[in-house]
Parts: sequence; structure tokens; C-alpha cells
Amino acid sequence: MAVTATGSRPERTVPVPDELRAAARKVSNWGRWGPDDELGTLNHITPAHVARATALARRGAVFSLSVPFDADGPQGAHGYRRNPVHLMTLDGGDHDVAERLGGWGGEAERQVSELWRGPMRFNDDFIMMPLQCATQWDALAHVYYEDRLYNDRPAGTVTSFGATRNGIDKVAARGMVVGRGVLLDVVAHRGATHLEAGAVIGPEELEAVAAAQGVDVGTGDILLVRTGWWQYFRSTGGSGAGGPGISWRCAEWLHEREVAAIAADNLALETSTKEFPGVTLPFHMLALRDMGMLLGEMWDLETLAHDCAEDGVYEFLLVAQPLLITGAVGSPINPLAIK
Amino acid sequence: MAVTATGSRPERTVPVPDELRAAARKVSNWGRWGPDDELGTLNHITPAHVARATALARRGAVFSLSVPFDADGPQGAHGYRRNPVHLMTLDGGDHDVAERLGGWGGEAERQVSELWRGPMRFNDDFIMMPLQCATQWDALAHVYYEDRLYNDRPAGTVTSFGATRNGIDKVAARGMVVGRGVLLDVVAHRGATHLEAGAVIGPEELEAVAAAQGVDVGTGDILLVRTGWWQYFRSTGGSGAGGPGISWRCAEWLHEREVAAIAADNLALETSTKEFPGVTLPFHMLALRDMGMLLGEMWDLETLAHDCAEDGVYEFLLVAQPLLITGAVGSPINPLAIK
Amino acid sequence: MAVTATGSRPERTVPVPDELRAAARKVSNWGRWGPDDELGTLNHITPAHVARATALARRGAVFSLSVPFDADGPQGAHGYRRNPVHLMTLDGGDHDVAERLGGWGGEAERQVSELWRGPMRFNDDFIMMPLQCATQWDALAHVYYEDRLYNDRPAGTVTSFGATRNGIDKVAARGMVVGRGVLLDVVAHRGATHLEAGAVIGPEELEAVAAAQGVDVGTGDILLVRTGWWQYFRSTGGSGAGGPGISWRCAEWLHEREVAAIAADNLALETSTKEFPGVTLPFHMLALRDMGMLLGEMWDLETLAHDCAEDGVYEFLLVAQPLLITGAVGSPINPLAIK
Amino acid sequence: MAVTATGSRPERTVPVPDELRAAARKVSNWGRWGPDDELGTLNHITPAHVARATALARRGAVFSLSVPFDADGPQGAHGYRRNPVHLMTLDGGDHDVAERLGGWGGEAERQVSELWRGPMRFNDDFIMMPLQCATQWDALAHVYYEDRLYNDRPAGTVTSFGATRNGIDKVAARGMVVGRGVLLDVVAHRGATHLEAGAVIGPEELEAVAAAQGVDVGTGDILLVRTGWWQYFRSTGGSGAGGPGISWRCAEWLHEREVAAIAADNLALETSTKEFPGVTLPFHMLALRDMGMLLGEMWDLETLAHDCAEDGVYEFLLVAQPLLITGAVGSPINPLAIK
Repeated sequence: MAVTATGSRPERTVPVPDELRAAARKVSNWGRWGPDDELGTLNHITPAHVARATALARRGAVFSLSVPFDADGPQGAHGYRRNPVHLMTLDGGDHDVAERLGGWGGEAERQVSELWRGPMRFNDDFIMMPLQCATQWDALAHVYYEDRLYNDRPAGTVTSFGATRNGIDKVAARGMVVGRGVLLDVVAHRGATHLEAGAVIGPEELEAVAAAQGVDVGTGDILLVRTGWWQYFRSTGGSGAGGPGISWRCAEWLHEREVAAIAADNLALETSTKEFPGVTLPFHMLALRDMGMLLGEMWDLETLAHDCAEDGVYEFLLVAQPLLITGAVGSPINPLAIK
Repeated sequence: MAVTATGSRPERTVPVPDELRAAARKVSNWGRWGPDDELGTLNHITPAHVARATALARRGAVFSLSVPFDADGPQGAHGYRRNPVHLMTLDGGDHDVAERLGGWGGEAERQVSELWRGPMRFNDDFIMMPLQCATQWDALAHVYYEDRLYNDRPAGTVTSFGATRNGIDKVAARGMVVGRGVLLDVVAHRGATHLEAGAVIGPEELEAVAAAQGVDVGTGDILLVRTGWWQYFRSTGGSGAGGPGISWRCAEWLHEREVAAIAADNLALETSTKEFPGVTLPFHMLALRDMGMLLGEMWDLETLAHDCAEDGVYEFLLVAQPLLITGAVGSPINPLAIK
Repeated sequence: MAVTATGSRPERTVPVPDELRAAARKVSNWGRWGPDDELGTLNHITPAHVARATALARRGAVFSLSVPFDADGPQGAHGYRRNPVHLMTLDGGDHDVAERLGGWGGEAERQVSELWRGPMRFNDDFIMMPLQCATQWDALAHVYYEDRLYNDRPAGTVTSFGATRNGIDKVAARGMVVGRGVLLDVVAHRGATHLEAGAVIGPEELEAVAAAQGVDVGTGDILLVRTGWWQYFRSTGGSGAGGPGISWRCAEWLHEREVAAIAADNLALETSTKEFPGVTLPFHMLALRDMGMLLGEMWDLETLAHDCAEDGVYEFLLVAQPLLITGAVGSPINPLAIK
Repeated sequence: MAVTATGSRPERTVPVPDELRAAARKVSNWGRWGPDDELGTLNHITPAHVARATALARRGAVFSLSVPFDADGPQGAHGYRRNPVHLMTLDGGDHDVAERLGGWGGEAERQVSELWRGPMRFNDDFIMMPLQCATQWDALAHVYYEDRLYNDRPAGTVTSFGATRNGIDKVAARGMVVGRGVLLDVVAHRGATHLEAGAVIGPEELEAVAAAQGVDVGTGDILLVRTGWWQYFRSTGGSGAGGPGISWRCAEWLHEREVAAIAADNLALETSTKEFPGVTLPFHMLALRDMGMLLGEMWDLETLAHDCAEDGVYEFLLVAQPLLITGAVGSPINPLAIK
């Protein structure tokens, strides 16, 4: 199956386009926060910013922005990303398991048998999953080009043991993904239920949506972009192919505003339309590698968007802390918006 | 190895002790928030409580309370809990993988090969882990006795597919683990670096620590208890055997104060000392099954404790939202304390 | 996604059909080899049978009957069976990993660092997979009905810890899946390239194929049935839906001939056509539970079939030993036919 | 925990010792079977050899040489190798799971619910494990030095996707690990119950054991060396540290006799004693990389050894086919010896 050797490989003929390289120079934050920095644009989030952001939580209304982590997620049957496998190691059918095992089962059985001598019973579980299979942050170590990660680290700093530099653990240990969140509801602004496949959202549109919503975007903000993709996927069970999303041209706009991080409700944040021939994910290249900006994907923005539409308030306290997984290049999260 | 059948099994001879059963009746919240409730004492966290709690984030200082998720965690080589296995699916050694594969590798290779035609490169990863292997919440479906989970659900509602009732997903989807956090630093109060193995913390001591710290504990609060265990484990590499922790008698004290959730820096929250002969984890039995209270374990409270000792402020905004893993009986978390 | 509660469940209204129950009585081997037997029809394979079977290996030609275990296998994206996930823990990109890690990485890093001080380098890997995702044996503990496994064991003997009775480990530890193999090439006999979806192979056809091939089927034989499904799947990438396969009525024919085990090149061995309304896998029910006969699925019989067609010899030494996985209800295998 | 950066790394100062390099030249099989060969010394196993080997199966007695794959194996809690995790996806506690789920559980639940409408019930399971955690073959792609694998392949042919060259799949697809097996019972010859930690077995001793047993070792044979380690581990639960095993000097002896493969009952086949200062696993270097010889580890030779001692016959038909895992650098196996 998997082993069909072919002699001819397409040459890698597509270099970094000049226009993209020029943008990279403009938005680059290499060295901005010192040669050892591994946090990137999260440095825009200062204690003062956090203190101001918490003041946005006026009503005490909390919104979870996570999609479910389970077998029915958007990943396919093949390739390097799959849906989570969640398995029980003990469940409700095991209430009398010690008697049933009767000495069978080695050390695990001995542990349970000892516990089961009393009245207490418990359930336990396991998960296997790609760290980027559902609601998540891309770490700065996730994407690179020309052998360099954010802040001039060589790609080789990411080994089979994990990312020794720019990993999500560096962010996770610092407790920094807390700040003012701003929702830009592109779907609602276009008057649609979802954006068509391959739709491109440029900086002008982000600007227009912000203006129409009466919200500004500034230093340290975490921007959430609603494309309607998740709702569309959930209702159709369709694949992630041809997702709508933002243009690489948004990088400069985000850089000027000193945005701290950006997330969306689609598979890849940026549009599936090839904006440069032969270049995949140019926004990822600029954001993760040159700017040092975390990217969030597969967030569920539906309930929050309804609430924002209702009260006209598109800003909130956002808390979206990644797990402290040593060396990981991404992390599952359950982001909270608190209004 | 594992298959050594023995004819003689110890009979299950230890019923629920009368004293424990009496406590269960006192602290029971079954039916308190309706027959369909799956949130338990998190119901004490109202929007008004959340709004007040956010006001505690005065300085904008954020503390991550997570221990690292990696191979060097406190789980052993055998039995049902192990340390996480984090593996890279693509890493920095794969920058020219498309040429190296040369048509080998099936669908995954085809996906990468297409992406690799341009300059973008990425790293990706996978995790396998027990959901309760490091910093975590126990879901209400985690512990039961006499065939009943919280709010009178039969144990059989937890199948091999996961917890259909009282799962951590119910809490995760609601965005409720946000509120006022209170640290009770038992180690500092005892003037020790860590508590000895099997040390028991009773409600009188919680009360005394709170008084000495000048902090009150009330409705909707999330209580954090520092025993020094994590710091001790980290510096000695020792096992989790014989952990210090709280007594089952704390349940009533927590119930009276309408505490929303409780967590500690040790393996099992409660003491490893057998307070009733033959009964394991009596506090888990009361808290998870009768009260419907989330229990947190293996939290790293060191940095936060130092800060609290310095400024004398032991209250803060706490955000500790579990992942939305469908049917899970626990969840890894990265709890944040914001002062 | 996964959590859409519905009030109405279809009642389980389909009991064991009378005709099936009558067949079960006829083919039952419960008690035949004693009350403790966990090997079932493999008991037909005696040392004398093995000695005779080895004499069939005249040319020394060895055929592997395994399909590849990889991401491009026949399992889907959802549900309880998935394709294998094979990940490298160390690979050729890690030749200088000790220098790159530079003290990062904990115990695993320390182990590698010590090894890397000399010139030796190694690669290592991990697999996650359902035990029944590709070429495999179903253990006797795999299928049951009316709460009973083979030889009158209660279903409860299979706990979350694994099968304490009738597991594949019992077969694996005994070294018994060695014997005379006989290929029945139903595809060739029908003059087709593959059987249509849902095609049913009855005992009369097995008889006719054997006669046409000039081969008899007798005590202790392991029967291989070629339907062409694997070749069809491999060339079309199609799903496993609507597979051709044998009828439940073959059970009695196999019982009379004292066949030791049976395998095929399709997903489920038996036909996807519902031979009794509302009853799934009736042949599995009879074979695994009543007869105690191992069932093999997803075997690649293509090369062997070509060889048999060429020399007219459809019998061979077959070695298809399962892995010794404690408590497993199935096992991946690489079966060998030796002519 | 895992992230303690240190500035000072021990330099890699140990090159390939001259004596080892000279041995490598002598035993090298690079090019011997063509530039595309990926089978190495298995090429010594010809059809004629296989036919002769099957004639050794006179009594029809079959011995499984596998240790159990379970949580109680010899791997530790940390590092890159762990004991297997075997989990049930459905078990005997799920006989009425369709009613219990009641529409909960997504696609997997829908599949089970459909199946559960009839009387059939099934159990299913999953495994996660390093491919080299218990009884196994090292693939030729497992060990290398100076950037070269067997037959002059660059180390870079092993990517994060797996071994594109010299993988175990190449052997598995060819069905070649069948031939004459010869047991050399070093423990019995020394009159011990097991060899002491670090014991070294040189070629002279292999020669002497063979002579004492009255068995010769020749072209195409698969050699099994008993050190008693597995029995010792099993009875003491001790760790794998300080294993006895063969010397690197055995390589030339094996090369001269044209042995096809070699396996032992210990953790690493070769001795843990450092025969060259600073050089780990020199025999692995010669065997896997220069000779192209499969190495087997953690085989259970106890029962077979007892039988050989009893009838004085130390030769047999050996079948030890690896799984066809695409790109794997090792494979779990259940080797059979048939006398």
C-alpha cells in the first residue's frame, strides 16, 4: 500500500516569493525582545494589559470556545493528523473487577485489588491524539522556512525529543495567554451563515468589521476571527478541504496594531486559496517564524458570537492557556471568553 | 508474568463505615441543583461570583500552576497510570523529507510532499497519556461507591465509550472553572519545607491556616492546599508513596463553606494514611460522589506560594478550565492564578 | 458533535434465530476438550498433524500473507477501529541529537546522551493500533452472545484489564497455529477478479472449489478463502462496506471436517449480506463462541493464489502465530505459507 | 523537571576503535547481494535451506519463544522505551452498552448501536507500545554509525515517517525468517542458573557449547543463545541493568559460519560490559550495519532449553516472522521452534 516507490520527485522549485520576503522583513520581531526570547508577540501582554483586560469581565458570563475532542472531529483516516482516541482503563462495568480478575493481571491488578478491598470504586482513562487535532495553539516551533524558526533558531533545535526552543511549554510555563480578546465576526458582517470555500479575508475587511462593530484592535489584544467554518463542518460533517480564512496580507496589519495572538474557527486560520503559486500557508510562515505570534485553530466561536451580537460588546477577558507539555509544538486548549 | 492465576481472592469485607455514611448524608448535594445536574458544587460559582473574582486581578501578575507533562513525571512503569509519551510526527530533521521519501509513505507522504513543494516546513506531534497523569481535575464520574455516581447516576453510565453522565466534558463545555481562588499554605504555616509522608490535614488546620493568613473561605471559592509534595518529589525524584494530604473530615467543613472545588500539590489530594481500616480514598468518595466537587491533583503551587508570602495576599482570580474531551473522567489542565 | 442525546432507542428486539440456535447446538464444542479448555478447534492440531504438515514444505518457498500495517489501511477516521499510527522516537535526523539537546529532555535525554558519547547511533519507534486493524486473528474472547463466551465462560471474564479467559495469549503461549493450510480460491473458481459486494459463499461452493482444485479438507486444517476483496480494496482505495464472504451455513461444514481455523482476504470473513434479519455476524457467533474456532481477516492471499494456480498445489505448511499480548482479544500476525 | 538546561555537554570524543573498524571490514556484506539488497544475511536462507529445515520438525512439538507483552515487562517508567499499554475499546461490561449510551457517543456509538440490535456482542482492544519493548527483531535500520546504515544507505533514509530503506517491512514482506534454528545453552554449559551481570560470551565459548551439545552451526542457521536473563528477570522482577551477553568478537565467528540471524533471552543480546571504553553496543554496530544481520532480543528460551536438554536435540525448524509494519525499525514477534 504505502510503499510504491517512484523514481521521479517534483523538484522543490518554489522559493520564498519576493513580496513575502519583503513582508517578512517588515513584520519581523527577531531580537526585539532579546536573543533568548521564546514568547514573541505575547510580550505585548503586560501586567497592566492583563489588569485592564480583567476589568472587561463585567457580567461574569463565561464562554467556552472549545470544540469537542473526540472521534468525530475534523481529522481524516490517514496521514499525520487523526481524531483523538479516548479509551477507558477502568469503567462502570468494572465494579467487581477484583473478583473477576482473581489474581490475573500482574501489577495493575494488584493495585486495583488492594483498592477494591474497600467500598471505593473508580474510573480512569487514556487519550492518544495529535496535539493539533482540535481547538489548539500552534507553538512558535510549529512552522519555519529556510532552516530558521522564530528568533533565528535553527530548525534542528526541534529533534525527535521535541522542541528544545520555542516550544509551547515556554508559553505554558509563563502563564501568558491571558488578555483582552476581540471578536471580529466576518460572517455576520458579510450577512452570511458561513464563508464559501477558499474565501479570502484581507486586512481591509478586518478593519471594516472592527469599525462596523465599534471595536478597536490594539497592543496586546488577542484577535478571534469568525468564518463560520466550524458550524458548517458540524452541521454537514464535511471535510476541511477548501477552508475560508485570512490572507497573508493581514500579517502587516496585525504587526502594526501589536496584536499578541490570533485565532479562528476554521482548520488552518488562513485561507486555502493559494495566494502565491506553489506556496502553502504563507501567513503561518510570517506569523509563527517572523513575528513570533501564536496561531489558534478550530475554535468554536458560535455562542460567543451570538452573545456579542446581542449586547454589541465584542471585547472580553480571554484566557487560553496551553498545557505544559515539555517540547510540544502545539497544545490542545479550552479557551474561555469572560464578559 | 502477568498471568499467575491464584485461587484465593480476599473477600470484599469492608463496607462503607457508619461514620463515613453519616458524613455522606450531611454533605450530599444530590438533587440540590435538580435531577439532571452534572456540575455539582461548581453551581456555587455564579456570574456575580465570577465578576467579583476578576476584580482580584489587580496587578496583572499571572502564575501557571501546572507541573510539566513529560516522561519524568510521577507515574510508574506499570499499572494503569503512566507518564506521558510525547512523540514528534515531523521534526527539524525532516526539512528535506519529501526528497528523502521519494514516493515512499502513502497518503501521509503525499500530503507532505505537496506541502514541501514550497518553502514552508512544519513540525507536528502526538501525545499518549492517562488523563490523570499530571496536573488535572478529577471529573465527578471518576469515583463512586455502592453503584452510584454523583446525583444518583448508576455506575453503568460510564461505559467503555466514556462517561455518558458526570464527565469532565460537561464542565468543560460550560466554562465554569473560573472564580476566586484561595491558597492555604499548610507547609509554611507548619514552618516546614514539606509535610512528612502520610501527614493528615484536618479541618481545624485549614481553619487555622486561613486565620493566620487573614483570608476567609466562602461560597464559590476554589481552595488550593499546599503540602510541599510536588517540590519534594521534584528535588528527590522520589515516588508518590505515602503522600501527605487532607483528611476525609474536611468534607463537612468544605460543604458548610460552599466551596466550589479543591486542589493540592500532591498525588491524591487526601492523605495516604488509612483513616478507616481497609477504606481507600474516603475523601474522594464524599467529595466526588456525594458533594459533586471537582478535585485537583499534582498542581505546582511553589511560585504562587512565594508570591503570596511576599505580598500577604492569598486570594486571586483562578482559571482552571478542563479540556473538552468527550466522555472523559478527568482532564489535564494548566491552571492560572491571576493577582 | 458526539453528544447528541436522543430519548428514543431502538429496542433490542432480535433474539437468536431458531435456525441459528439449532446450528449452534450441532457445532458446539463446549466441554469437548474439558471444562478448562481455551484453545477450541486448535485442539484438532496434534503433533502428528504438525509433523505431516511440515512435510508439505517441499520447495522451501515462503509466502507472507500479511497486508501492510500503516496509515493507508482499511480502517476509517471515526469509530472504534482506526489505522495504525507508527511514530519514530529516534530517527536519522537525530545523529547529533545529544549536542542539540544540550541537557534538555530529562531521563530520556540522559540515556541518549550517554549512548551518544560513542559512535553508535540508533533509531527507535512506537505503534498505536487496534489489535484488529489489519491481518489478524480474532481470539475466542472476541465475540459472544447471551452472556457466554466459548466453553461457557461469562462475558464478564473480559474486563477493562483484558480477557482473563479465552484471550489470544492462551493460544500464543502454546504455539499452536501451525498446521496444514489449504487455499480455496473462490474468485478463480468463479472466473472473476473479485466477488461483488455482499456475495455469499455457501458450504456447497467451498466443497465445489475444493473438488475442482483437487484438494481435500480435513481434521486440523487451516482453511484460507480468497474473495479478491483485499486486491480490490488496494487497487480502488474503496471502503470495506458491503464485503463478500462466507455464509453462516459454512459452520456445520467446517465442524464436520474438524477444521482448526479459517481465514480470508476480506474485512470480516463472512458476508455483509444479512442472512437473518437484524442479526449481524452470525458466523462469528457460531465459530468463536460455540465452536471455539479462530477467525482470520484481512489476509493477503494474492501471491500465494498465483503460485497455487501455477503448480496446482493448494496445500502447504501454514504458520500464523499470534503475538503473546496478555489479555488481548485479537492479534496482528504475519502468516506464512511454506510450500 | 525535564527542562534543566546545562551549558556544558560532554564532547563526542570516542571514534570507532581501530580494532572494531578492522572487524567491520572483515565481516562487511555491503554489495554482496547487490546494491539494492535490504535483507542482509537472511540471503543465506535459500529455499533448499528452508526445505531441509522443515524436515527437522519430526515430532511436531511446537514451542513459543515469546515473553508476555504487558505492563509487567522489563521497560522502565521513563525514557524512550516503555512497557505496552493494552486497553479495551469494548469489553464484557458493555453487553448492554447501546441502551446505556442512548444516542450518546457519535459515530462509534452509531456503529455499535446498529450491531447491538441483534444478539451478537463483541470485545475489542488497542495497543500502544515501542516496537522493541519485548520479544522482537531489530531491523537493519535500527543501528548505524558514521551516517551509514547497512549496504551504504545514509542515515537520513530513516525519517520521521519511518525507515524508507532496511526497514523490518522489507523482511516481513518477503517471508524469510524461516530456517534451521540452533540453540546454544550457555547457562547449562556453565552449570549455572543464570549468567552473572555483565558476563561476556566469546566465540570460543559458542564453539565449545556447540561441540558439547553435538550440534554444528552453518550457512543459513538462526542461532539462539540462552543466558538465563529472562528467567532471572521474571523471578526477581529486577531491572535490565548489567545484562550478560555475547562479545563483539562473535561477529567474525558468525560471519565465517554464514549465520542468518541471532537472538538471545536477554535485553540487548550483547554484554553490558564495555569492551571498548566509551563504545556502546559494538556488536550491534557490526551485525546490523556491516553484516546486515537481524538481532533478536528478550526471547523466552526456557521451555525449549528444557526440551533440548531432555532429548539432546538442539536443532529445529524456527519460524520468527516479523509483522509487516511499514517503515518500522523493529517488530514484536512470537517465534516458534518446531521439533
